[in-house]
Amino acid sequence: MKLSDLGEFGFIERLARYAGTDDPRVICGIGDDCAVIESGRPGKVLLVTTDLLQEGVHFEDATGPPRLLGRKALVTGLSDIAAMGGVPMFFSVSLSVPPDTSVSWVEEVYAGLGERAAASKTALIGGDTTASLKDRSLSVTVIGECPQDEVVYRRNARPGEAIFVTGNPGESAAGLRLLRARAAGGPGAPGASGEESEDFDHLTARHLDPEPRLFAGRRLAADRHASAMIDVSDGVAADLGHILEGSRVGAVLDARLLPVSASLQRACARLALDPVILGLSGGEDYELLFTAPASLDEKALSRSLELAVTRIGRISDGPARLEIRDARDRVISLAGGGFDHFRT
Amino acid sequence: MKLSDLGEFGFIERLARYAGTDDPRVICGIGDDCAVIESGRPGKVLLVTTDLLQEGVHFEDATGPPRLLGRKALVTGLSDIAAMGGVPMFFSVSLSVPPDTSVSWVEEVYAGLGERAAASKTALIGGDTTASLKDRSLSVTVIGECPQDEVVYRRNARPGEAIFVTGNPGESAAGLRLLRARAAGGPGAPGASGEESEDFDHLTARHLDPEPRLFAGRRLAADRHASAMIDVSDGVAADLGHILEGSRVGAVLDARLLPVSASLQRACARLALDPVILGLSGGEDYELLFTAPASLDEKALSRSLELAVTRIGRISDGPARLEIRDARDRVISLAGGGFDHFRT
Repeated sequence: MKLSDLGEFGFIERLARYAGTDDPRVICGIGDDCAVIESGRPGKVLLVTTDLLQEGVHFEDATGPPRLLGRKALVTGLSDIAAMGGVPMFFSVSLSVPPDTSVSWVEEVYAGLGERAAASKTALIGGDTTASLKDRSLSVTVIGECPQDEVVYRRNARPGEAIFVTGNPGESAAGLRLLRARAAGGPGAPGASGEESEDFDHLTARHLDPEPRLFAGRRLAADRHASAMIDVSDGVAADLGHILEGSRVGAVLDARLLPVSASLQRACARLALDPVILGLSGGEDYELLFTAPASLDEKALSRSLELAVTRIGRISDGPARLEIRDARDRVISLAGGGFDHFRT
Repeated sequence: MKLSDLGEFGFIERLARYAGTDDPRVICGIGDDCAVIESGRPGKVLLVTTDLLQEGVHFEDATGPPRLLGRKALVTGLSDIAAMGGVPMFFSVSLSVPPDTSVSWVEEVYAGLGERAAASKTALIGGDTTASLKDRSLSVTVIGECPQDEVVYRRNARPGEAIFVTGNPGESAAGLRLLRARAAGGPGAPGASGEESEDFDHLTARHLDPEPRLFAGRRLAADRHASAMIDVSDGVAADLGHILEGSRVGAVLDARLLPVSASLQRACARLALDPVILGLSGGEDYELLFTAPASLDEKALSRSLELAVTRIGRISDGPARLEIRDARDRVISLAGGGFDHFRT
């Protein structure tokens, strides 16, 4: 059997058997945004997360400068720390590049890593660099910390709770489509209109240079508001699916509630895409998707998190199935459901 | 400028500027086998190390089965923990493989990682897996622990101290040559002779399945015997060079003292190689190279470490230059000096 037959999540399930689940120092191993391990600090735990960005899958030379690649590589890890409610502390980097890569390309990657590191007070502590045959890849491991009783896992969503998401999921996927359209010289390239050009800049920045929601994640954990949380890297539907599996609950998502920004709406019109489908199945938004008591008000939450928060559905009794209802209250089916690294 | 012009060490030097050296939680950042960071446990520090194994550079399909690749990937990190005097605790894995890779290949890699993890009581806590365009690569980050006042750095070698090495450096490089010779169908393939076949098995195992010297490293640290230590991954000469640069001292290495096993001697004769040159410049032995008081006896050390230890030279006053003297007391020059990932 090939990996492409098994798919990414089937594969992760198979690997979980090798995880150190019987080690008393491991509080949570494989199966959440970060591993949670014992720290020596009273009441604190360490969070560890590893993310790999691969050329041709996560980035292409045509779609972005190396400085932004460096920024994004660290952000993928920072976002995992945010999704557990933690604070990042350290990171290390593995970089493979062909020997004919220019020094300035690599330095730009590190400059980008350095910018995001400085902004999040996360210290580069090491790594490894090696020549590859052909591909460029960048793997970042981030170590963070969190009070043990504030860690937000995927497994504690409860029936009756509301589902919230920060920001505007789908914008990153729209940005990627715009970049590809521009590279291909087709429609979607920035045109003469100022609005079109502003949309392009906004959406491509959401794809190339996403923000880690560290403040919001920490706040949700410290205020004990979020019962379960994940960052949106595979798409809202797929990532909500991970919460449902972890918590053994179901969910009903109201597609009409999904926030669609004006830029996303306009870009989708130009690209002939459905912004709701993009919002549900697009990936790499690095927004936070969380469950919380239904009594919480999204406006109060938005003020407290300094970030737009939208209620998009509710948790129901199991089984772990996601029902998505559209404007006419019909159930929508999402073929595929999200991004899977091995299926094509 | 291309990376191949700058070379691996010039490149690492350039990157060090991005390291979090002004962070009070970072006791030692880039520039040793592991980063040393504050832990919350009184008197203890955390050790973090990342190693990247890249197809075509560190492994080839022709030279070894995937289970051994998994074992070796973890050993490279365990060896870094050993070289600081620490104890490994956790590890995470980044794996890139093309989508047409068989599931069993990847499972064998993980089975190998699992074997070395179990033997060293190191728990797998996570990682990331992604499809690559073409190359396979495997990056492992290991987190360990050490009493803060027992950590052995590269920077504390002192003039007058002796230089010791464990095991038989050069055997790994000889094993690699034998594997390549066999793959090419040339000389060095296991022949009819039992001794030749035993040498082949021994030396190729040293290359494909090296031992992490965890017990010896911990013992040297706990007994306060080693003043400076490194693991032999780039070759004795190059790795001793790292100690000299870190400690700002010189060294005189007596090539006649370099341990050459009977297997290494015989294999080199067959391959028309000089075992001393191979011992000095071969890499990936994962033996420990350390400095210690000249009064220490190598036999007593060998007993205490349960591992052959050989005194091979002494530390001299600076500058950080390595002088290698041969049987006729002539200075040997090693072109290149060791393995460099970007120079070809």
